[in-house]
Amino acid sequence: MSAFALLVEYDGAPFVGWQRQSTGLSIQQVIEEAAAHLNGGEPPLATAAGRTDAGVHAEAQVVQVEIGADLPADRVRDALNFHARPHPVVVRSAIAVAPGWSPRFDATGRAYRYRILNRRARPALDFGRVWHVQRPLDAGAMHRAAQGLLGRHDFSAYRAASCQAKSPLRTLDRLDVARLADEVVIVAEARSFLHHQVRNLVGTLAEVGMGRRPETWPRAVLDGRDRARAGQTAPPEGLTLTAVRYDPPIDWV
Amino acid sequence: MSAFALLVEYDGAPFVGWQRQSTGLSIQQVIEEAAAHLNGGEPPLATAAGRTDAGVHAEAQVVQVEIGADLPADRVRDALNFHARPHPVVVRSAIAVAPGWSPRFDATGRAYRYRILNRRARPALDFGRVWHVQRPLDAGAMHRAAQGLLGRHDFSAYRAASCQAKSPLRTLDRLDVARLADEVVIVAEARSFLHHQVRNLVGTLAEVGMGRRPETWPRAVLDGRDRARAGQTAPPEGLTLTAVRYDPPIDWV
Repeated sequence: MSAFALLVEYDGAPFVGWQRQSTGLSIQQVIEEAAAHLNGGEPPLATAAGRTDAGVHAEAQVVQVEIGADLPADRVRDALNFHARPHPVVVRSAIAVAPGWSPRFDATGRAYRYRILNRRARPALDFGRVWHVQRPLDAGAMHRAAQGLLGRHDFSAYRAASCQAKSPLRTLDRLDVARLADEVVIVAEARSFLHHQVRNLVGTLAEVGMGRRPETWPRAVLDGRDRARAGQTAPPEGLTLTAVRYDPPIDWV
Repeated sequence: MSAFALLVEYDGAPFVGWQRQSTGLSIQQVIEEAAAHLNGGEPPLATAAGRTDAGVHAEAQVVQVEIGADLPADRVRDALNFHARPHPVVVRSAIAVAPGWSPRFDATGRAYRYRILNRRARPALDFGRVWHVQRPLDAGAMHRAAQGLLGRHDFSAYRAASCQAKSPLRTLDRLDVARLADEVVIVAEARSFLHHQVRNLVGTLAEVGMGRRPETWPRAVLDGRDRARAGQTAPPEGLTLTAVRYDPPIDWV
């Protein structure tokens, strides 16, 4: 058996999410079925750094898979890409790793980008890639409100009811909000996130951006530790996993 | 009758191009049929600054349409967007213009962006938005070669056989090539372009980028005025119309 780390890009739209589900096709299933061709027909287990939800995209998900075939990493990448067709899932890069290496537990950081299209007209070119918010957003107010959430906190207020993490404590390292023409872009970085944490943060900051809540409100929600007090969960299609970090960094080729 | 200029965004993938064709749905037809709802049921003629080909996208096409209904520009925008659903064509902005105003003949400049995804793996997130070139491209060599094409020239070598322009003389104001991670992005600006000119320029520069031809070759092709000597026509999906300029500029709201 040889273990490989894969740098994976996908369009989340047609999938039920990263994880295998009985309800439809997952990214995990696409990769495992492609990898079966390199594993004597048996789909191996693929594990990911972040189990993205249905509709969430990835530019740089990190996946581990073990296969029986004795192949160089470049050939594994090309073979997986061949067999994953026509699904919008591709392996950008593959490298050999030690068998016990975990993309999830060995990760030291995750970065997500959330895109809001903030204009009157619905998206044409970016349909399925952005949250369309018609009401004008004050990105500056959202950014200032976001800075009050940085650091180590109990993020229970921003956690999905379905979240399986043992502890609600997380350290938010970065939560930047900036306007780029008619887009408002949010960048979030942490060692790890709770389930729906980024989308709940975005939905809450959007309330501030629309002027419905003061800039102090997202912090008050945090301190209240009550999910029911926060804003809506922003829709999945605006969210993209942009980076997973390791120490030492993986030298993707 | 009231005339409006429309700032239009579209995904070119599902269309036969801007212009009405018997072979399938065009962007023109979508806009004209949406505008019919504001014109007593009769589709008015919609004219565009640039008649983009099948598969070519626009962030900022400019369209003129005259309608019988007496409506403010904002209502025209919203009504067209309502009636254009579910097609990926939206009016970002609408303003009233004088009846004789032409988005095509009054334009003083057009800008296009061409995106090449230059990596081994096919596109997942940007499928239909980029030309996928696996062989490594030297963007610096492409940029240097492009600079030899600036200015006023007979662009017959870069013109489609089907081009209907009376003169092959055009003034190329900008042709920049830059690498952004695994993308090579080409930006082209001119008062106007010949049919397929940008895509033929990109296909020719790509030959230089792959090292198959010297940096002097695109200029030699230009001077030869023979279409058969140039590179391939780069595929439409990498091309986006990003701006149409007027003097004085249109104050889109």
